[in-house]
Amino acid sequence: MPRWESDAQGRLERAALDLFETQGFERTSVAQIAGAAGLKERSFYRYFPDKREVLFTGGELEAHLVAQVEAADPGLPPLDVLLTALGTAEGTFRPRDFLLRRARVIAASPALAERDLIKLADIAEALAPALERRGVGPAQARFVLDVVLAIHRRAMPRWLAEPDTTLAQLMAEATAELREVLAPSAPTVGRVGRDQP
Amino acid sequence: MPRWESDAQGRLERAALDLFETQGFERTSVAQIAGAAGLKERSFYRYFPDKREVLFTGGELEAHLVAQVEAADPGLPPLDVLLTALGTAEGTFRPRDFLLRRARVIAASPALAERDLIKLADIAEALAPALERRGVGPAQARFVLDVVLAIHRRAMPRWLAEPDTTLAQLMAEATAELREVLAPSAPTVGRVGRDQP
Repeated sequence: MPRWESDAQGRLERAALDLFETQGFERTSVAQIAGAAGLKERSFYRYFPDKREVLFTGGELEAHLVAQVEAADPGLPPLDVLLTALGTAEGTFRPRDFLLRRARVIAASPALAERDLIKLADIAEALAPALERRGVGPAQARFVLDVVLAIHRRAMPRWLAEPDTTLAQLMAEATAELREVLAPSAPTVGRVGRDQP
Repeated sequence: MPRWESDAQGRLERAALDLFETQGFERTSVAQIAGAAGLKERSFYRYFPDKREVLFTGGELEAHLVAQVEAADPGLPPLDVLLTALGTAEGTFRPRDFLLRRARVIAASPALAERDLIKLADIAEALAPALERRGVGPAQARFVLDVVLAIHRRAMPRWLAEPDTTLAQLMAEATAELREVLAPSAPTVGRVGRDQP
């Protein structure tokens, strides 16, 4: 990540994260972020439409994921394609420590948490056609994407908190956990859809 | 649903849906919705904070779901608790035809689609503590919720389009589909997290 360390966009992202951490997202202005990054306020808007976007430069991650899905072995089932793509992409664009602090700041701000939700849906939206080109039906593509995003969400906090792990490994563990959650338990299956006592 | 058919809130919801369908969400004003419902504009704001909210009166659904989870047999696994709660709640508050038209209007408007996403996250947020009170850990509670919402999203369009089905039945089918998607396929498991060719 040598370019990100020194370029203006990276400086703005790190300045924003510092300020969001110390004084909160709501109380931070674009002028402050630009100032802390040694830039004019005007320059901020060359990179981001507003301060909500400064932690969500998802374009490069999204493009990387789509390329990964498109390059995957045609015989690989969609679940494995997505687990591989997501499990290896994170950490490619930003240092893990930055991502950990970013996750905390997002969790502390409802406005940022909403943005995060929408950004994930955008990523799913972008990946669905890539799955469909592999012959997966549109509804199933969206279903597998939703489930893999749930797996990703389960694995991410542990990966961020445990430096000796890989995200791919923790996503595989979350997948195994999900298999157990879904294992039919003899007396309950018949109850689905019936009345509660 | 006798009350909803005749009360002011129900009239506003139906008027909004009609207008969103015929002229689009963006081009519809609060004054038009209120007028079509035979009410003053001021009255609209007694029920909804803005026009984005008129199709998302989720409070009653959320309370119903939480109550269902709390009333469920303590021995029932979280997946079954949620499948039962969600599978039987929909259609309790609004007619299926209204929900079908509503789903189309939401899909056609990015602003409404964002609102829908956030509303679903709010429902998950409200249900998580109810699962935790059953002894499920917070991270797993959120995971099972995310997965059940994915199952719900897979089942919902089919339920809306196929009048002879129950949502519970289609959610059970989507759950079975997910078990298949997750079934380990011998040559691929080892590849998760490895490089693509």
